[in-house]
Amino acid sequence: ELRFDPTEHQHLRYNPLRDTWVLVSAHRMNRPWSGQVEKEEELHVPRHDPNNPLCPGNTRANGEVNPDFESTFVFENDFPALQPDGPDPGSDQHPLFQCKAARGLCKVMCFHPWSDVTLALMSIPDIIKVIDKWAELIVDLGSTYPWVQIFENKGAMMGCSNPHPHCQVWASSFLPNEASLSDRCQREYLKNHGVPLLLQYAKMEAQSKERVVVQNSDWLAVVPYWATWPFQTLLLPRRHILRLTDLTSLEKAGLASIMKRLLTKYDNLFQISFPYSMGWHGAPTGPHLIEDQSHWQLHAHYFPPLLRSATIRKFMVGYEMLAQEQRDLTPEQAAQQLRNLPEEHYKTHQM
Amino acid sequence: ELRFDPTEHQHLRYNPLRDTWVLVSAHRMNRPWSGQVEKEEELHVPRHDPNNPLCPGNTRANGEVNPDFESTFVFENDFPALQPDGPDPGSDQHPLFQCKAARGLCKVMCFHPWSDVTLALMSIPDIIKVIDKWAELIVDLGSTYPWVQIFENKGAMMGCSNPHPHCQVWASSFLPNEASLSDRCQREYLKNHGVPLLLQYAKMEAQSKERVVVQNSDWLAVVPYWATWPFQTLLLPRRHILRLTDLTSLEKAGLASIMKRLLTKYDNLFQISFPYSMGWHGAPTGPHLIEDQSHWQLHAHYFPPLLRSATIRKFMVGYEMLAQEQRDLTPEQAAQQLRNLPEEHYKTHQM
Ligand SMILES: O=P(O)(O)O[C@H]1O[C@H](CO)[C@@H](O)[C@H](O)[C@H]1O
Ligand SMILES: O=P(O)(O)O[C@H]1O[C@H](CO)[C@@H](O)[C@H](O)[C@H]1O
Repeated sequence: ELRFDPTEHQHLRYNPLRDTWVLVSAHRMNRPWSGQVEKEEELHVPRHDPNNPLCPGNTRANGEVNPDFESTFVFENDFPALQPDGPDPGSDQHPLFQCKAARGLCKVMCFHPWSDVTLALMSIPDIIKVIDKWAELIVDLGSTYPWVQIFENKGAMMGCSNPHPHCQVWASSFLPNEASLSDRCQREYLKNHGVPLLLQYAKMEAQSKERVVVQNSDWLAVVPYWATWPFQTLLLPRRHILRLTDLTSLEKAGLASIMKRLLTKYDNLFQISFPYSMGWHGAPTGPHLIEDQSHWQLHAHYFPPLLRSATIRKFMVGYEMLAQEQRDLTPEQAAQQLRNLPEEHYKTHQM
Repeated sequence: ELRFDPTEHQHLRYNPLRDTWVLVSAHRMNRPWSGQVEKEEELHVPRHDPNNPLCPGNTRANGEVNPDFESTFVFENDFPALQPDGPDPGSDQHPLFQCKAARGLCKVMCFHPWSDVTLALMSIPDIIKVIDKWAELIVDLGSTYPWVQIFENKGAMMGCSNPHPHCQVWASSFLPNEASLSDRCQREYLKNHGVPLLLQYAKMEAQSKERVVVQNSDWLAVVPYWATWPFQTLLLPRRHILRLTDLTSLEKAGLASIMKRLLTKYDNLFQISFPYSMGWHGAPTGPHLIEDQSHWQLHAHYFPPLLRSATIRKFMVGYEMLAQEQRDLTPEQAAQQLRNLPEEHYKTHQM
C-alpha cells in the first residue's frame, strides 16, 4: 500500500488559530503558468523625494509639514478608515440588517528618514527604535481602545502606495473579526490543554526544526504547519508574552535581529525587495487590560504573495474565496527553501 | 446632534452568512491613489487560437485532443488540486498538527467554442446550455461528493491564465471552510427564525429595492448589505431552491437572462471585460442528499476586485488580512451605480 507523502499527496491541515483547514496540493507546483505576471518592483527609489509626503521636511495632503525626523515619525492618517467619533446608527435592527458604530484612530509610522531602505536593510539599533515606537503606540492607543492593529503593507503588489518604509496603526473600539477568532481559539486551547496554544506550538516547532526558518534565544520564525500563503511565516517569542509592551530591552534587541534575518532571507529568495503584509497580534487592550488574558501569546504574521518568482504570485481567488484556501507547496518545503538562503542581504555589496 | 449617515459615518455591518463584520468607511473614497495600477485587459483575443488548449480541436498538456465542441465542453483538469484517491495520513495526531485526507476531482468547463466571447456576450440559449451543464455536473459529482464547487475566475487580475471563457468544478470529499460556515449560519437562522435566511433576505431586498441591481420574476441580484468587495453581488432565486439541480426550465431561462443583464452592467461600469471570481453555493450533496437541508437556499456570489476604474483595484491586504475587511463605498452606492448603467453591452455595436 502507498505510504502517505505530504509532498505528493493532497491533504488538509488544521489551523488551530482560526479553526479552519487549508488544502495542501504540493504536486500542483509543476503546472505551467501562462497567467498574469507582476511588474518587477521599482528598482530605483531616491533617498529623498521632495514630492513624497512621507519624507522629512515635506508637506502632506492636509498642509502639515513633516519635521526633519531622524528615526521614526508617527502622524495621523490623512484619510482614516476609523475616526474617533461619529453618530451611532442606533439599535432596533432586523437580524439580517445589523449595523453598529465603529470608532477609532488611524496612524502612519515612518520607519526611517530615508526612502531607499527597508527593515531588512536598516541597522539593528534603527530597527529597535521601530519596535520601541510600536510598544509606545500600544501603550498610548491601547489605554482606551480594545484592539490596536499594527500592520505593514510592503510593495505595490500588496496595495502599498508609497515606497517610503512605513507601517500603519489602526486602533478600534471593537475587536475585529480576526482578533476575536484568534481570541476564541487561544482561549479554548488553554482551557482544554492547560497551556497557551502558541507557547506549546513554539516549543514543538523548536524541537522538530522542520519548519523553522530562523531562531535565536528569545524568538522563533516558522512557516506554520497550516500556512496558506506560499512563504507565510509566524514570528513567535519563546517565553509567554502577552503584548509588545511586555518585551524587555534584550527581547527587543533579539526581535530586531531576527526580523532583519527573516526579511533578508525573504529578499534573497527572489532577489527583490520582497512584498508582504505583516502585522502583530497580541492580547486585547483597553477594557481587556484588567482581564485575565493568559491564553494569548504575542505573535506576528507575515503574508507574502509571491509563489514562483519575483513576478509570479499566488492568486487567492475562486476556490479560495468560495470554498477553502489551497497551497501549492508544503510548509516544510517553503521553510527549507528559506532556511537554506544566505543571511547576508543580496544588496549588501551594492549599497 | 449629528444624524447617522452611512455614506459619511464609518460603521460595521454584520454578514449573517459568515458570522463576521465588515467595516464600511465610505468617506475614504476621496483619498488620492498613487499605488499600483493594473494592466488593461487584453483587447484582442482571437476567436480561435491554435495554441490555446481550451479551443476546439486543439491538443492539451496531456496529449488529449479536444473535440470540435459547439457549446460547452467539460474535461478533467490536467493539474488537479484534488485527485480521487491517495493514501490516508493516519490519525493519532497532536491537536496542533492535525492533518486529514482530501479526495476529489477537478474539472474544467468551456462555456463556448469561441475565445472572444464571455457570458455577458453570449446568447441566452447558449447561456442556458452552460446552466444545464452546471446542473448535470452537480448530479454527477454530487452523487458521491459532499461538496461540488463551481467557480469562475475571470480576468488576469483574478488569476485566470486563459482568456477562453470557462469555469472550474472542484468536487471534494469534505465540506470546505466556507461551505461549512455558511451551512452553520443558515442552519441556525432557520432554527431561530423559522424561515430560511436567504429566502427572507431576498424578500426584504426586493421590497426595499435599495440594493437591487437587476431582477426578474424568479431571480434577484443585489449588492448585499454586508458586501466586502466594492461591487460584490449576490444572485438569489425568489423561490426556496436547494440546488442548481432543482431549477425548472423556466427558472433556468430566467437565470440566463439575469446573468446576462448583471454581467453586461459589470462590463459597462468601466467599459472593460469586468474581472471577477464567482461561484455557486447550494445545499451539500453526496451523503447529505438524504438529510434535511431546508435551511439552505441556492445562491451565487460575485467577487469583482475593481474599485475606482478599469485599472484601480481594491487591495484586501494588511488590515483586511490581519483584522477585518473594510470597504470604501456603501453597498447602496455601489448598487445604485450598477443599477443606473444601461443594459445594452458597450461592445454591442463593435461586434
Ligand atoms: O485556474 P488555475 O490556473 O488552475 O488556478 C487559479 O485558480 C485556483 C483556484 O481558485 C487557484 O488556486 C490558483 O491560485 C489560480 O491561479
Ligand atoms: O495604505 P492605504 O493606501 O491607506 O490602503 C491600503 O491598506 C488598507 C488597509 O489594509 C487597505 O484597506 C487598502 O485597500 C490598501 O490600499
